[in-house]
Amino acid sequence: MVNETQHSCSASSSSKSDGGSSSGSESSKDSSRCSTPVLDADRHERLREKMRRRQDAGDKWFSLEFFPPRTANAAVNLISRFDRMGAGGPLFIDVTWHPAGDPGSDKETSSMIIANTAVNYCGLETILHMTCCDQTRDDITGHLQKAKRLGLKNIMALRGDPAGEEWEEDVDGFNHAVDLVKHIRNEFDDYFDICVAGYPKGHPEAESYEADLRHLKEKVFAGADFVITQLFFRSETFLKFVKDCQAIGITCPIIPGIFPIQGYHSLRQLVKLSKLEVPQEIKDVIEPIKDNDAAIRNYGVELAVSMCRELLDSGMVHGLHFYTLNREVATTEVLKRLGIWKEDPRRPLPWAVSAHPKRRVEDVRPIFWASRPKSYIYRTQEWDDFPNGRWGNSSSPAFGELKDYYLFYLKSKSPREELLKMWGEELTSEESVFEVFTCYITGEPNKNGHKVTCMPWNDDPLATETNLLKEQLEKVNRRGILTINSQPNINGKPSTDPIVGWGPSGGYVFQKAYLEFFTSSEIVTALLKVLKKYELRVNYHIVNVKGQNITNAPDLQPNAVTWGIFPGREIIQPTVVDPVSFLSWKDEAFALWIEQWAKLYEEESPSRMIIQYIHDNYYLVNLVDNDFPLENCLWQVVDDTFELLN
Amino acid sequence: MVNETQHSCSASSSSKSDGGSSSGSESSKDSSRCSTPVLDADRHERLREKMRRRQDAGDKWFSLEFFPPRTANAAVNLISRFDRMGAGGPLFIDVTWHPAGDPGSDKETSSMIIANTAVNYCGLETILHMTCCDQTRDDITGHLQKAKRLGLKNIMALRGDPAGEEWEEDVDGFNHAVDLVKHIRNEFDDYFDICVAGYPKGHPEAESYEADLRHLKEKVFAGADFVITQLFFRSETFLKFVKDCQAIGITCPIIPGIFPIQGYHSLRQLVKLSKLEVPQEIKDVIEPIKDNDAAIRNYGVELAVSMCRELLDSGMVHGLHFYTLNREVATTEVLKRLGIWKEDPRRPLPWAVSAHPKRRVEDVRPIFWASRPKSYIYRTQEWDDFPNGRWGNSSSPAFGELKDYYLFYLKSKSPREELLKMWGEELTSEESVFEVFTCYITGEPNKNGHKVTCMPWNDDPLATETNLLKEQLEKVNRRGILTINSQPNINGKPSTDPIVGWGPSGGYVFQKAYLEFFTSSEIVTALLKVLKKYELRVNYHIVNVKGQNITNAPDLQPNAVTWGIFPGREIIQPTVVDPVSFLSWKDEAFALWIEQWAKLYEEESPSRMIIQYIHDNYYLVNLVDNDFPLENCLWQVVDDTFELLN
Repeated sequence: MVNETQHSCSASSSSKSDGGSSSGSESSKDSSRCSTPVLDADRHERLREKMRRRQDAGDKWFSLEFFPPRTANAAVNLISRFDRMGAGGPLFIDVTWHPAGDPGSDKETSSMIIANTAVNYCGLETILHMTCCDQTRDDITGHLQKAKRLGLKNIMALRGDPAGEEWEEDVDGFNHAVDLVKHIRNEFDDYFDICVAGYPKGHPEAESYEADLRHLKEKVFAGADFVITQLFFRSETFLKFVKDCQAIGITCPIIPGIFPIQGYHSLRQLVKLSKLEVPQEIKDVIEPIKDNDAAIRNYGVELAVSMCRELLDSGMVHGLHFYTLNREVATTEVLKRLGIWKEDPRRPLPWAVSAHPKRRVEDVRPIFWASRPKSYIYRTQEWDDFPNGRWGNSSSPAFGELKDYYLFYLKSKSPREELLKMWGEELTSEESVFEVFTCYITGEPNKNGHKVTCMPWNDDPLATETNLLKEQLEKVNRRGILTINSQPNINGKPSTDPIVGWGPSGGYVFQKAYLEFFTSSEIVTALLKVLKKYELRVNYHIVNVKGQNITNAPDLQPNAVTWGIFPGREIIQPTVVDPVSFLSWKDEAFALWIEQWAKLYEEESPSRMIIQYIHDNYYLVNLVDNDFPLENCLWQVVDDTFELLN
Repeated sequence: MVNETQHSCSASSSSKSDGGSSSGSESSKDSSRCSTPVLDADRHERLREKMRRRQDAGDKWFSLEFFPPRTANAAVNLISRFDRMGAGGPLFIDVTWHPAGDPGSDKETSSMIIANTAVNYCGLETILHMTCCDQTRDDITGHLQKAKRLGLKNIMALRGDPAGEEWEEDVDGFNHAVDLVKHIRNEFDDYFDICVAGYPKGHPEAESYEADLRHLKEKVFAGADFVITQLFFRSETFLKFVKDCQAIGITCPIIPGIFPIQGYHSLRQLVKLSKLEVPQEIKDVIEPIKDNDAAIRNYGVELAVSMCRELLDSGMVHGLHFYTLNREVATTEVLKRLGIWKEDPRRPLPWAVSAHPKRRVEDVRPIFWASRPKSYIYRTQEWDDFPNGRWGNSSSPAFGELKDYYLFYLKSKSPREELLKMWGEELTSEESVFEVFTCYITGEPNKNGHKVTCMPWNDDPLATETNLLKEQLEKVNRRGILTINSQPNINGKPSTDPIVGWGPSGGYVFQKAYLEFFTSSEIVTALLKVLKKYELRVNYHIVNVKGQNITNAPDLQPNAVTWGIFPGREIIQPTVVDPVSFLSWKDEAFALWIEQWAKLYEEESPSRMIIQYIHDNYYLVNLVDNDFPLENCLWQVVDDTFELLN
């Protein structure tokens, strides 16, 4: 909304008083058979309720604005940025809408698809901007329907910039943001939370500051739930604006838009677009250092921190909205210095929760996708029902096939050249593959001096928790037990444990030891003999790419491998080893050898043939040690296997 | 079936070969939202499947036959016998059908109601006998429909004794058991498992042994699933019979009917009815000791044990059916000596599971009814859905009101006089009530020398598990904390633990400490002050008879207080403290003061007024210590409360 223009001054100033933000906040709890444990109340609240709860609790929050990227590669980067900045705990993010960029399309760079990705794949509460001028009613309704279908729940209703220089009203059309607000409320009732823009200095096109305030009141009384303001340079500007709003009866939350100055050019650009004037005292500092980006950014951070402090100290501000310009450093630093960036966010569950309303009850997933949660969400996006409490029959709907390995939100963050450096320009034997796995585990550089920071099955470095197993993992990978997933056993650690904890405090978390790996049929043959000794203690599933499947799972039931006990609650078991979904995972896990690794090499090249050989001949194995209070026996199982082989 | 006569010899001997026991054993698994954990495969199998599984596993079993009682008091006793003999692990029990006794009625002594009680309230797999001669098609269909409605799944199809001396066939009616078998299969498809009677010596009315075998084959080919035989005195008789059956193509299970001789008169009676001849060698032993019941019973036990051993050793017998004559001692002794009575039956769940097919997925219950499971089943009998995995929304259907405290299966086993001796002919103060509670806990006699072996809230002596808390319970009851339910905290004991274990072996069970008691408002006031110190650790619900309710349960969610972790399975949490159902339990718990205790005394008598005072003024309190790995803090809470009061 930085470059947003104001609705025409000819707008009617009559204000409706029939509701606005207080209209019917119907609870949208599902009436499914099992109740939801409400482990994290957040997931069941609308944005306006979250805002209210945080305000009531005196808990300051922040939100982040992004614009859609211009290229597919930039989209990949933006999604990683969502993940990284999402870790700091924003209350929501918002994605701007640029009519020229085909914002409602299915392109990977469209506002709609970026917002969809943020909600569904990054689990972020998201506001999608939408403009209405120069658009037909049907277009707008279509966009809103699509947004709803994708699980978006919040709209920032804006007028947008008219196409021509001369602004002419369309009698039947949408001329002002208020028309869009009314349209959303008429067509979608209370489904969306609606945000509108406020201008602390008045909109540059407005008749007057007072007239502009009246327009804002109109928007709010038409059904907007809260206001985010245009940027400003002095806290007094904002605080006066809020008081003036309150004086004419605007009582909904008004959130200050914060713009940390990050560079000379971006500031100039922004000022031009928004027709704001930069105060002289800021110009005086910036002009002399205009070619020193670092100096300007430092100054911008200082300035933003001190203005934010004034705002928060006023008692009138509960949340801060940041215009990030899709950059991380400045905003993150301001937030950290303000102390509202969550360094160690409490995980409500051990995996990243999607923010799609359909998935609000979801609290069980198979462990297989632990390192590929976006792929799991993608492959289950068509499910109508998500497992809650038990893994249950929700596993019956088929998993979607994963053919689109190159969807930007499923894609590796690293380009081909970098992957080749990590995984080998040229493979000479199966052992050179073992070496890649080993380097990924140890964090040591490979023989060409490159660190292996990702694998086809895991686009991030080793998890802290996996680090607990590092030494043993290194040992077994060297010998051709190519691990792609593992967890240690945990016998009742506090839920606040920084490494393995999750869920509300005062609880205890548990895990059964888990190990998943590819290995040769020779090793599998020995392993099966060894497993006979561990028959009741260890559950296993062993499958090859053709689907030949060997298991001792009783009645093909899921095995809970992560669970938590909390005060005053039912038991939560967020992770299971499920024999049925393992066969869907198997397809994905084997395909990743080819899609992500083999295809880096020329067809028929020796490197490619090595990967192809492994794909065709290795088995995917998973092992669970059911005796979680005892020492993990899975390493002993592997040792016994190698002993048998020798 | 001991006194069952055979179908007429004029029956057609043509045999249908279109199915019989192999006809469509359609799996009847529910397709509810959450899957069933199949903690005990038993609950999901039909009787014929259980039989097959036990046979395949080489696991010998037994079953028990009872007849309906003549009086209401006898019905109460029979139900306790079901509970006691059920503990030995019969594969099923069966209840005979006597047309003269109005067997399909709603009387508490009817076969239908006794069988219903066995299935639903005692959790026993049950076969209901049914005869067909002299009955209309509509009568029979009506009985079968009723049986199905009540959750009965197995019918023993018999002809029954014709009313008159002269047996005349009714052309359109049911003249033979085979007609009933066909009718059941025609009208109810494969819903029922059907059992028919076999006569090792041939039916006394049959043309010949061979003709009788052909009649049996007819019954089996008409759709019977297995055969139970008339009693016999020599194992050779049975083994020859089985071979002869097999020779003519009867391949379904044939179960020997065992009759341990228990007395001279019952033997004579039986022999007369069944027209069997007692072998001379038995007569020779019995006649001289015919007035010595104990001697005859000992002989009967010896005889039965040696015959059963021969049968089991033959390899042709996998299960033994006992004609108990509604007595316990002889049959139990035979079973114990054969080693097939389960001394320490593994509990599939910590509470007694109902055998009604509707309840097959049920695996969570509120802890409140722990000592009154039959009342819980009664009050939830109208539910369509039972909680599975999570307590969930199944708690929303209202609990049925418990007005019928005198239903025979909910009634105290002890008569009024005995209760007065235990609970006091005359109460003089609230303290004399404390004394009763204390004696129940300690097992010591009260001041009149009578042991208190039951309480209105618990018709049985203290559970072994509660004994773990005996010392502390005694202390607090003396001071007016009148405990009615409690469990210790358990932090991962093996599931095979003889006291607190349940579920399959190889698992671990857990509990949060629980304490439930009545107490005065004075103590409650102090308790509430103390509980502030334990705010996050202890969840409480405190309610009086008027429904004034004080709790710190978050969002009124259920709190899991018993759970188990098993190899290869999802987590089972069979017991919860549920704030919503606590209010239904409260009505029952308060009413028991009046219904079971106060009403023992004259109206307006001081004793009655004391109980009435407690009912009107005391609170019902429950406490959960969420910190199950630490030492139970609930005793400290109570100590702190008394300290505050002093």
